Amino acid sequence: MQNVFLKIQYDGTRFHGWQRQPKLRTVQGEIERVLSKLCKQPIDLQGTSRTDAGVHAYGQAASFCGEYEIPIKNLRNAANRMLPNDIFILEAKRVADDFHARFSSKGKTYIYKILVTNERDVFCQNYYYNICKKLNMTAMRNAMPFFVGTHDFRAFMSSGSKIQNTVRSIYTFNMEVRKIKKEQQGLEGQEIIVEVTGNGFLYNMVRIMAGTLVDVGLGKKQPEDIINIIKSKKRRLSGHIAPPGGLYLKDIYFNE
Amino acid sequence: MQNVFLKIQYDGTRFHGWQRQPKLRTVQGEIERVLSKLCKQPIDLQGTSRTDAGVHAYGQAASFCGEYEIPIKNLRNAANRMLPNDIFILEAKRVADDFHARFSSKGKTYIYKILVTNERDVFCQNYYYNICKKLNMTAMRNAMPFFVGTHDFRAFMSSGSKIQNTVRSIYTFNMEVRKIKKEQQGLEGQEIIVEVTGNGFLYNMVRIMAGTLVDVGLGKKQPEDIINIIKSKKRRLSGHIAPPGGLYLKDIYFNE
Repeated sequence: MQNVFLKIQYDGTRFHGWQRQPKLRTVQGEIERVLSKLCKQPIDLQGTSRTDAGVHAYGQAASFCGEYEIPIKNLRNAANRMLPNDIFILEAKRVADDFHARFSSKGKTYIYKILVTNERDVFCQNYYYNICKKLNMTAMRNAMPFFVGTHDFRAFMSSGSKIQNTVRSIYTFNMEVRKIKKEQQGLEGQEIIVEVTGNGFLYNMVRIMAGTLVDVGLGKKQPEDIINIIKSKKRRLSGHIAPPGGLYLKDIYFNE
Repeated sequence: MQNVFLKIQYDGTRFHGWQRQPKLRTVQGEIERVLSKLCKQPIDLQGTSRTDAGVHAYGQAASFCGEYEIPIKNLRNAANRMLPNDIFILEAKRVADDFHARFSSKGKTYIYKILVTNERDVFCQNYYYNICKKLNMTAMRNAMPFFVGTHDFRAFMSSGSKIQNTVRSIYTFNMEVRKIKKEQQGLEGQEIIVEVTGNGFLYNMVRIMAGTLVDVGLGKKQPEDIINIIKSKKRRLSGHIAPPGGLYLKDIYFNE
């Protein structure tokens, strides 16, 4: 048996999320189907993040134990030929037997994308949070540092999660803004790329932080409200949950 | 009763095409549902093109007869507020009683988008024909003029269509190429935008012409082969059918 690490890119639009589910098209399900054929045995693939339906990945990580006869560098290409077009394995390599994509993870970076346009952009709906109102980006920038540090982020977790320890550390929280122009649609606007890195994230945490930032941008909340929202530990005090299509799992960190 | 013209934009990714179908999410079905509520009566919406599943529109045209109490300019905004995010009505206006979006159409422009990259771009799959091989674009450009003019395009029609008269006129057929760079994915490549205008198109005609052009780009066919393919009237001699996600209904023309 060999322990194999995969780095995976996918467009989450047409998937019912990462996690295998009977009769539904999922990322884990598609990759397991292909690996099981290549390895001629049922493969159990462990992903680091169980991304929700509609959430994308530039760099999901996963690992599995299995036997395969072809060289590891051919495994990547063979799997990519058999996978659907909206999944691509960027890397496949052997790792130590005690490596596990979920339990060995030390941190993650997520990107959340917002598109501000004068009128609805139908073509961005699965890839951005499209907002047709003016956002105060200075207020949004001022709110971001309040998230950084080690806090109990219970107020930024969707109900339904059974996790006990809701303390997480956010290392960096930044945003970039650039002008965009879509001539074929006659649209102009701004693309906002929010990037957040931490040691771990609660259920829907990035989407609730992004929704809260948008509330700040709309003037519904003030930047310094973030302090009291975190302290309150109450989900009803944080902002709305931003849609899944704007969220991208960018990278996952492991000890070398 | 008033006769109303609509110009509509949509992302076809999550639709089972334009045409209303029981229990399936279609563009016509979604708009009819909203208009029927606004007009407080069942609305029958006639679109110019019955686009297939996955095909997009920058400017679909449609018309309907109905009564509504709000001003026509408010109808557009009211409908857009009720429509899902992947449909947007660009324009709504009163037209003469004898206007019919399908039968009054004099011509259409389609765009077909191809993306050439070194490795698979998972994020373009619903919006481009993604090709990871080198294309001879000079050969493709040389093939395009052979389509222009009035011809029997039976060789470029999918089987299953019951249409008798397969003669159509293509007025213009052009392509533009520009470099693209996707830093977050580490991808580089070229975006090819094919634009074709004609008085009408057979079933799957633009997608089969685009697939045939790609075959020319791959060296599987020569540019001047187009002449004999058209003459043959045989579907098996034309190229493969390009995927639906690359196709955009750009504009529709009517007599003023």
